[in-house]
Amino acid sequence: MSTTGPETPTPEAPVDPEEGFGLSTDVVYAVEDALAVEDPALVRALVSDLHEADLADLIESLARDARQSVVEILGAELEADVLPYLDAGVREEIIDQLGPQRLARLLSRLDSDDAVQVFEDLDEEFQHRILSALPRAYRQILEESLSYPEESAGRLMQREVVVVPSAWTLGETIDYMRAADDLPDDFYDLYIVDPRHHPIGFIPLSRALRTRRPVRLTEIMETDMKVVPLAMDQEEVAYLFRQYGLVSAPVVDEAGRLVGVITVDDVVDIISEEAEEDIMKLAGVQETDLYSALLDTTKSRFPWLVVNLLTAILASAVIGVFEVTIGEIVALAVLMPIVASMGGNAGTQTLTIAVRAIAVKDLTEANAARFVGKELLVGVFNGLLFAVLTGLVTWLWFGSPEIGAIIAAAMVVNMVVAGLAGTLVPLGLERMGVDPAVASSVFVTTVTDVVGFFAFLGLAAIFLI
Amino acid sequence: MSTTGPETPTPEAPVDPEEGFGLSTDVVYAVEDALAVEDPALVRALVSDLHEADLADLIESLARDARQSVVEILGAELEADVLPYLDAGVREEIIDQLGPQRLARLLSRLDSDDAVQVFEDLDEEFQHRILSALPRAYRQILEESLSYPEESAGRLMQREVVVVPSAWTLGETIDYMRAADDLPDDFYDLYIVDPRHHPIGFIPLSRALRTRRPVRLTEIMETDMKVVPLAMDQEEVAYLFRQYGLVSAPVVDEAGRLVGVITVDDVVDIISEEAEEDIMKLAGVQETDLYSALLDTTKSRFPWLVVNLLTAILASAVIGVFEVTIGEIVALAVLMPIVASMGGNAGTQTLTIAVRAIAVKDLTEANAARFVGKELLVGVFNGLLFAVLTGLVTWLWFGSPEIGAIIAAAMVVNMVVAGLAGTLVPLGLERMGVDPAVASSVFVTTVTDVVGFFAFLGLAAIFLI
Repeated sequence: MSTTGPETPTPEAPVDPEEGFGLSTDVVYAVEDALAVEDPALVRALVSDLHEADLADLIESLARDARQSVVEILGAELEADVLPYLDAGVREEIIDQLGPQRLARLLSRLDSDDAVQVFEDLDEEFQHRILSALPRAYRQILEESLSYPEESAGRLMQREVVVVPSAWTLGETIDYMRAADDLPDDFYDLYIVDPRHHPIGFIPLSRALRTRRPVRLTEIMETDMKVVPLAMDQEEVAYLFRQYGLVSAPVVDEAGRLVGVITVDDVVDIISEEAEEDIMKLAGVQETDLYSALLDTTKSRFPWLVVNLLTAILASAVIGVFEVTIGEIVALAVLMPIVASMGGNAGTQTLTIAVRAIAVKDLTEANAARFVGKELLVGVFNGLLFAVLTGLVTWLWFGSPEIGAIIAAAMVVNMVVAGLAGTLVPLGLERMGVDPAVASSVFVTTVTDVVGFFAFLGLAAIFLI
Repeated sequence: MSTTGPETPTPEAPVDPEEGFGLSTDVVYAVEDALAVEDPALVRALVSDLHEADLADLIESLARDARQSVVEILGAELEADVLPYLDAGVREEIIDQLGPQRLARLLSRLDSDDAVQVFEDLDEEFQHRILSALPRAYRQILEESLSYPEESAGRLMQREVVVVPSAWTLGETIDYMRAADDLPDDFYDLYIVDPRHHPIGFIPLSRALRTRRPVRLTEIMETDMKVVPLAMDQEEVAYLFRQYGLVSAPVVDEAGRLVGVITVDDVVDIISEEAEEDIMKLAGVQETDLYSALLDTTKSRFPWLVVNLLTAILASAVIGVFEVTIGEIVALAVLMPIVASMGGNAGTQTLTIAVRAIAVKDLTEANAARFVGKELLVGVFNGLLFAVLTGLVTWLWFGSPEIGAIIAAAMVVNMVVAGLAGTLVPLGLERMGVDPAVASSVFVTTVTDVVGFFAFLGLAAIFLI
């Protein structure tokens, strides 16, 4: 940019608040049309102005063969920055298409944290082939990053940090930064280290810019600083940034030396991923499902459905115990799903609250007993309300106050059990070190199905036959 | 801070990677104990070092009367910054306790965006009483913020922005910043405006710090800038920050003038809230459920359960049509929940993927047809697999290959319907402008229940009787 007048540079037109940001579907259709008429120049022109994140979205939303054509057409122009934005399923496809040589060339243009993100998903043989095609220094950085546990701060961090000795003044710091050529592109805080390279404080850039040159760094630095150990899980890092509204945090090795920095842009992805993972786990699906191949998707959904088949068979076995009773009063078969279904829904409400509250540390040992007690009472109240409603509906429908009374009693029992199971199951799984999002909903709905059928049919067998 | 040597300031002890950040339950127990022995000095000492976010968590996790005691004990020492961190339910409780005069004093110490966040949840009469107790200038800012739609960029933004005219050099800018006393506490970008106060570019602070004084701002500014209109929905703002990895974005009014800035720390909360809202909506619960009063929680869960009762009754009515058939073959009553339950689970898997993909703009008109087609095929494949499994189990259990064949056929039908309903329902709701997270799961499970019972019992009525 060499313009100097205020009127020359024109920013983008303001966005339409209704339409919003991101890739427009018009671009997707235009690219599809250009591919259909085999006009590579038009494809190139259409994607040339897209932000890497939007180009990644475009590639994802195309059909598989169109995707490959676009990558082929872009060829050497394909920006390395697109790779980290791609969904893992689609990225794998494109990496296969690129081959190790071209991929190694692309990777070497990325920041270390982005390269690791792309690299860690590859299978081992592919990793080896790429490593041997990379420049030595870069290879070492990648290998070291990969030596940290998956989803740890070590994988997430960027090695390029602005570190300044504690004896410097602000003026010296600015002179150093103006001369240095190995600083990261974007950073938000300066880290001050002692002679052992331990971080002792930080200075937000906005403060540095407002301070006069002769001021010593230690006079204006913040010492109330959250330091992240290399091995910390990324979920905990995300919690840290969210809880304290941070934009960057220093990462230290076991000896307490500053080895990298994590910035908020990397954490924003983790924050939404972690909440998203919980939604997906609760429903028994894989995160990357949208772009997985048909057979992979079918396979990935299979185990959850098998578990649910087993629990459904268990519930059916409970019904089977009362075959004789049902044979005598068929109305029971008509009504029995209501009790089970209401219990399942009430239980799911409670467990959803519990799973998220545990994930964001709102629900801990300290308030668990109060939470269980409250949900139990909610179960009692809603159980009584729906007992009356369902009892009356049943009475009117089948003209039998006795069946109405029985379904009402079973409803109270099952809603109370739902409140208990919806709280105790996730809390118990958490205490056992199992992720409550993965297993809670199967357990809870099994309990409410079994208890629902058993209470309703059992009471009927006792009092109606 | 007036120390100058590198050894004097001691940072916090490094965190235990296993234990993590945030409020420790030990502190909660210690505060509860201190309250039990009525030792206000100990309570004050225990909370004095807590970050505002952790103090908010502490207040939330206490029982209601303990909460009020802590607020009472802290009295004037209660930091205003705690308020925005509190869950809305608990905040309301504490605001009632504080009363308008004390609240107004606290609010006036907050940044405009945080004050608005606390203020907007209050009821109107309370708002009026607080407004009249606030200093005039501050009142005007609050009133203007409240004039923007709820959950819009206008409510989210901070009015304090660093704006520089395009004719300046970096040196002039730094001199201005060193002299100014009305700059925001933390900022990440400098915004360059033309004479009409339209933003024409921005300079990240890290770039400003590395640039020499005589350089003109327009030479180093970025013009590829995303500008947020005042009326834009916060969900769209969150998307913008996440998609492009931003740390701040300028907000403009309808005439295109720069009126504020949104920073990433505000958006991080929105990002996790938006994903969280979807989990909660899918399960039919309110976000703030954990700390709501018992009766509020019971009431808030009631409507969802009523809708589910109605759908359960609808499903029962379908069973009722086949009462005679069930009377003749009671095994049908035992087996029928299996078909409905498997359809419900398969449908929930699909709709969860669809709801989240729509929310993050991965699923759009451009790839909807492909997605529906894929889910239909997944339904066919899994339907066939589970038809075989369930058919065999049924044959072995009841010794009847005929019932086995019927349940197998019903299973294929219901799994395919689940794939269709799981995609078409959320896509249809989205097109009608209804939030797919709110209504999808009721619709889909109603469809799979009704179709499941109807297919199984209907086929049995045709072929077995």
